[in-house]
Amino acid sequence: MAQTPPARSGRRGGGGAARRAERTAVRFDCAPAIRRRIGTFDILDEEGLSLIEANAETVLEEIGVRFADNPGALARWREAGAEVRGEMVHIPRGLARRLCATAPGRFTQHARNPERSVEIGGTSLVLAPVYGPPFVRDLDGGRRYATMEDFRNFVRLGYMSKWLHHSGGTVCEPTDVPVNKRHLDMIEAHMTLSDKPFMGSVTDPTRAVDSVRMCEILFGKGFVSENTVMTSLININSPLTFDSVMMGALEVYAQANQACIISPFIVGGAMAPVTVAGTLTQVLAEVLAGVAYAQLVRPGAPVIFGTFVTSIDMNSGAPTFGTPEASKILYGAGQLARRLGLPYRSGGALCGAKLPDAQAGYESANTLNAALLGGVNFMLHACGWLEGGLVASFEKFVLDADQLGPLHALASGVDLSENGQGMEALREVGPGGHFLGCAHTQANYREAFWRSEVLDYKPFETWAEEGGRDSATLGQARVKRMLESYQRPPLDPAIEEALAAFIAERKAAEPDAFA
Amino acid sequence: MAQTPPARSGRRGGGGAARRAERTAVRFDCAPAIRRRIGTFDILDEEGLSLIEANAETVLEEIGVRFADNPGALARWREAGAEVRGEMVHIPRGLARRLCATAPGRFTQHARNPERSVEIGGTSLVLAPVYGPPFVRDLDGGRRYATMEDFRNFVRLGYMSKWLHHSGGTVCEPTDVPVNKRHLDMIEAHMTLSDKPFMGSVTDPTRAVDSVRMCEILFGKGFVSENTVMTSLININSPLTFDSVMMGALEVYAQANQACIISPFIVGGAMAPVTVAGTLTQVLAEVLAGVAYAQLVRPGAPVIFGTFVTSIDMNSGAPTFGTPEASKILYGAGQLARRLGLPYRSGGALCGAKLPDAQAGYESANTLNAALLGGVNFMLHACGWLEGGLVASFEKFVLDADQLGPLHALASGVDLSENGQGMEALREVGPGGHFLGCAHTQANYREAFWRSEVLDYKPFETWAEEGGRDSATLGQARVKRMLESYQRPPLDPAIEEALAAFIAERKAAEPDAFA
Repeated sequence: MAQTPPARSGRRGGGGAARRAERTAVRFDCAPAIRRRIGTFDILDEEGLSLIEANAETVLEEIGVRFADNPGALARWREAGAEVRGEMVHIPRGLARRLCATAPGRFTQHARNPERSVEIGGTSLVLAPVYGPPFVRDLDGGRRYATMEDFRNFVRLGYMSKWLHHSGGTVCEPTDVPVNKRHLDMIEAHMTLSDKPFMGSVTDPTRAVDSVRMCEILFGKGFVSENTVMTSLININSPLTFDSVMMGALEVYAQANQACIISPFIVGGAMAPVTVAGTLTQVLAEVLAGVAYAQLVRPGAPVIFGTFVTSIDMNSGAPTFGTPEASKILYGAGQLARRLGLPYRSGGALCGAKLPDAQAGYESANTLNAALLGGVNFMLHACGWLEGGLVASFEKFVLDADQLGPLHALASGVDLSENGQGMEALREVGPGGHFLGCAHTQANYREAFWRSEVLDYKPFETWAEEGGRDSATLGQARVKRMLESYQRPPLDPAIEEALAAFIAERKAAEPDAFA
Repeated sequence: MAQTPPARSGRRGGGGAARRAERTAVRFDCAPAIRRRIGTFDILDEEGLSLIEANAETVLEEIGVRFADNPGALARWREAGAEVRGEMVHIPRGLARRLCATAPGRFTQHARNPERSVEIGGTSLVLAPVYGPPFVRDLDGGRRYATMEDFRNFVRLGYMSKWLHHSGGTVCEPTDVPVNKRHLDMIEAHMTLSDKPFMGSVTDPTRAVDSVRMCEILFGKGFVSENTVMTSLININSPLTFDSVMMGALEVYAQANQACIISPFIVGGAMAPVTVAGTLTQVLAEVLAGVAYAQLVRPGAPVIFGTFVTSIDMNSGAPTFGTPEASKILYGAGQLARRLGLPYRSGGALCGAKLPDAQAGYESANTLNAALLGGVNFMLHACGWLEGGLVASFEKFVLDADQLGPLHALASGVDLSENGQGMEALREVGPGGHFLGCAHTQANYREAFWRSEVLDYKPFETWAEEGGRDSATLGQARVKRMLESYQRPPLDPAIEEALAAFIAERKAAEPDAFA
């Protein structure tokens, strides 16, 4: 299997124009995906895990799952040994888990810049930005419908964000582009404005096909046929329903050996039982059925055990984020995913806050911390999420992206080398002394402490003189600085032209649709 | 040993006035101390723990600790078998740990309302408010020096905060009261405005004596001689120095069988090595020496293994909070404390933010989450801390106090009862259905999800119509509502008079001092 895209796709040895672009491009730090050198926090013991696993098998067998409007899927399930009644698929105990066994425990998603390729699974944690908001918000313009230019700006910010490993997918919904064509512009933006890995379209099987074809232009057809170059989000219509649009996209991707996150999307108490153990049971049943189905389509197709669960405010009916119940489910589902040997997706800088304020900070940090300790391997919504996912916030994007730094540092564990032990520092300084000037501190201080690039660390008086800015205002300044200094990563102009031609052809092929 | 204060101290059967006060008092929910039904997150393995423990013994033996201006302490150490050279105490390997063995693994701190008494140690987590800020801040008045009336308002808020188990100590420095007399007013405020447990004064041994005497008035002399009614904060002057003021207070409290938190106060890189393992070594050495000394003063005196560690911004020299290095130290020190069999103090809603904004939220939540999973038993600064501890914020007090709710819920673990499993709900609802109306949801929704009492959960449109308030503004409204509805808990007027008389006598005994 080829490990790097061939040179003809133009990242390195492309034409002279590409080489010239590369020479003048601003270089940004980009951290490699997190390698976890710490353990996980496990909230369930063996007895609890076994109980939930047994209950999930009961759900699959007795209650069953619905594959709606999808005769092909029903045929596949029947052939695999499930009992199909109408659209309901009853999966005998153990069958789904056996089918899941062909899914890889980890896989590489290639980026057009090989330095940005990521391994998903095992001890790695890959961070990707917010996905799906129809609105954007910034301090200047307030809350408004998202446009394609907003989308491009988020891709630019993501490209320049050191702790973000992935360009994501629908970082916001570009509502000014027809709904049946916007996927083309979105994928083009990811391909041309960033060199990080990205996600494909899932809103229609034909759009998944377009995504694959655009990747063939970018990476080369041979490379795509042998390598995973997209990770796409397949939401399950909880409870226990697999609709034909999402399954159609899954079928396209699995057949092309492209990765899918198989992810229940659950507001607890509405789309799942109101209890943690009940929700975990449903999550496991749904993921088992979805992953098994991907393996029926193509054994060995890369998949991720997804869990997006939030709780509900029973007073208002609003989904709530960063809550303890959601954390418990995140921890428990991580254990279930690891027992299945699958990469795990959950977490994100989730919040219900309307503004990037203290609520946003508390709720986002609650979930970010749980995701790290819960063993998440792929974290969507890691930055930019606001107002329950209705809004992508520019300021919160950079504030969250900055807070992903601590996850890297925490995951590195404790350095127990002789230098890490610091005994010579303790001997040199002694009781009542000061460590700032000692040799050990001087030799280590640059790497010793994670440091925010956006939050305020200045003395009160300096901060007050500079206008007494809150975090959102500091974020606003950072967004402007970043976008002003943005430069595109180099790309072979021939590839850009081919992508543009493909998009033009596809856009011309059907009338605009807006719903 | 008496388990509840005798009736003469007036909480229940006190005079008729107390009974009348009790009948008219507003009742507030107060959650019992957290009982952890989940495990801890351990960042070090056996090898790392043993290495740090061995290094700490080396520090105690070879480098030694300084007990400054304290001939009595040096005599105690000499008698115990340490080698004393000048003020330096070199503690032979293993001696400090052996001395620590007489310290109890858990103890009860009694409150004047027996329902508010707390167990400290084991699986419990007791939450106490911010300690020490010379400034206060609120949206109305901005940042200003703290006064006694601010102090009283924080005690009132703490009394009314459901998730706060402890009234704390110096919730802010009442700078309008002479420095040599303010401890009297502070302790009186805790005793009369709240019925939760509190902390004693440590700024001078005579003030510790005053604290004990006031407790004898409140609880009765006999009760205090046999029970722990205060937990006080003894900071170590890191690195490795035990000053005579703090040790003098410790001696008073230990002799009176009152609890002390023995706590290194460390800005990493300044007062300890710049590495995590080096700092953990120093923390352990300092706590071993301090706890051992308390046991030399009175074997069996209740103590807490304290760890207050923050990192430093090497650019500005400012301490930074909620950072990954501080979390690692928190996790590691918790393991070391549990191996010593001692209650553990760390954590808090720590932040460097100047305002209760997103930075405050991220940084506070980072530490609150680490403290829960790191096995903290006593958490000072659990609410109200702002600007690196220079400021006590009214709005952040109620925002943080609200965020302590999720710690309670998370600590309760996963309910695996038949009701918790929710299989009947899954069967009733089935694929594509909705859980909100099902019997299982109706029976469980009240207890199912933690719910904020201050953050905004409303739809965007409602929120916007109500003024588009951020978290700080919502906090401001909550502070006002709480203080307007505050009513003192009942207390026997005879006790109040005796306290006032004691304070008047002590204030008259010496001239005012302001530094």
